[in-house]
Amino acid sequence: MSTLIDGQASDHLPANDRGLLFGESVFETIAFHDGRAPLWVRHIERLGKGAATLGLAPPEADLLEQECRCLLSELVGQAVIRITLTAGSGGHGYWPAERPTSRRILQRRDWPMHLEQQRLDGVSVIISTHALGGAGPLTGLKHGNRLLQTLAARECLQRGAEEALLLDQQGQLGEAISSNLLLVSGSRIMTPARPDVAGVGLAWLSDRLGDALEIGSVGMDRLATLSEVLVINSVAGIRPVVAVEGQPFPRGPVGRRLQSIWHEELFPCA
Amino acid sequence: MSTLIDGQASDHLPANDRGLLFGESVFETIAFHDGRAPLWVRHIERLGKGAATLGLAPPEADLLEQECRCLLSELVGQAVIRITLTAGSGGHGYWPAERPTSRRILQRRDWPMHLEQQRLDGVSVIISTHALGGAGPLTGLKHGNRLLQTLAARECLQRGAEEALLLDQQGQLGEAISSNLLLVSGSRIMTPARPDVAGVGLAWLSDRLGDALEIGSVGMDRLATLSEVLVINSVAGIRPVVAVEGQPFPRGPVGRRLQSIWHEELFPCA
Repeated sequence: MSTLIDGQASDHLPANDRGLLFGESVFETIAFHDGRAPLWVRHIERLGKGAATLGLAPPEADLLEQECRCLLSELVGQAVIRITLTAGSGGHGYWPAERPTSRRILQRRDWPMHLEQQRLDGVSVIISTHALGGAGPLTGLKHGNRLLQTLAARECLQRGAEEALLLDQQGQLGEAISSNLLLVSGSRIMTPARPDVAGVGLAWLSDRLGDALEIGSVGMDRLATLSEVLVINSVAGIRPVVAVEGQPFPRGPVGRRLQSIWHEELFPCA
Repeated sequence: MSTLIDGQASDHLPANDRGLLFGESVFETIAFHDGRAPLWVRHIERLGKGAATLGLAPPEADLLEQECRCLLSELVGQAVIRITLTAGSGGHGYWPAERPTSRRILQRRDWPMHLEQQRLDGVSVIISTHALGGAGPLTGLKHGNRLLQTLAARECLQRGAEEALLLDQQGQLGEAISSNLLLVSGSRIMTPARPDVAGVGLAWLSDRLGDALEIGSVGMDRLATLSEVLVINSVAGIRPVVAVEGQPFPRGPVGRRLQSIWHEELFPCA
């Protein structure tokens, strides 16, 4: 069993689900190591915030935890569980039901080994031709409207890269497809303000580093002046950028130090 | 039977469908009158354009037509069929499968009688607090990332309105939730350039009116100076706005004339 829909083992859901019809959903992709999810609380908090924005009742954390345990059962080692909360069925077109009932989908996935490798070897990136949208009420939430990210990912495949840097509407480095950005200039570490997805991995690191992580944007034109660029998300951890548009990009001590902090403090036994 | 998935009668689809995971889909909502869909060719063209943008093989129009006939079978009168084309299952997170296989979902729905009534009585609208995103590669396509529209629709319900006018990033009237806009000033009829969804109803009317339909935007501040505001989509046809934020808004001869053209030329027997 690898999928639970509203607590029932099933890998099919109704075709009139509003998550399918309109992307009316929020989700979390959670890394488990031997049954432990060190960033659990942050994931559940963001999911709750997203649910509130969509007008859905917040999910019960205890229930979600119990269902995750059920999906992991005897599994040792690493796995990922995606929790999706959709606006369920009902309503008329875009107009939701007056009392919407959400649908809860939990999907277990194998650990993405290729990300493990990228953490060691680094990632080659392109600059995506797809710019991030402007800020709005959905900014920061991990909602189900991710067509832009899939277009950028397809562009990566076509151009032989592993990740892409997406610019915001002002031409500043904003985010990677699946990750937030850490922009290193000498001893300074910066991350853009108001990312499209407020990553829980970044939030953890930000709390850990305190003032040593600055909020700051860097224009595309200044990318070459950076000493290191790192991408961070809660499943893959911290990965160094080693090539941009086919040109080598330097790795450095900041990336190595942050990778150590990440692993020693979040996954001491992994 | 009211749903076909890849040609099979079924109302459930795999939970790993990328349309559900990321809104990676395009769709059409097509009005049928006694088995006839007068705007069929325009719908299929837009669907094909959207599929190409998402890297999916265009659907075969003959197959879709055959499946629609199958869903309508002996039905007389009016019905709506939604055709959704998703990026199917597969891939790794945002990264699509190298050779994606799309999934085709056809859903028959009862005719929305409340829209019929709104065509006669007009619609009361609010100005949505949710602004349309900036233009990008997805602009004009009817894709599955419609969270903004569902938020605006929920706002309508909460504030007792039937539709909402959405402003673009420049504060100009851009679109309604489910419809394009016709902005009337005396004898001039305008519609905004590059709408978020390039409506097939609007496209038909635009061809029909020729130069008499101007491309033009109107700022929120000039809304009160308009003589009529109409909303148009291919299922509901043309509906006049009769109230904005609770204040009465005038109906007029242009709306009545356009409604006549729409019905007499598209649905002469309806």
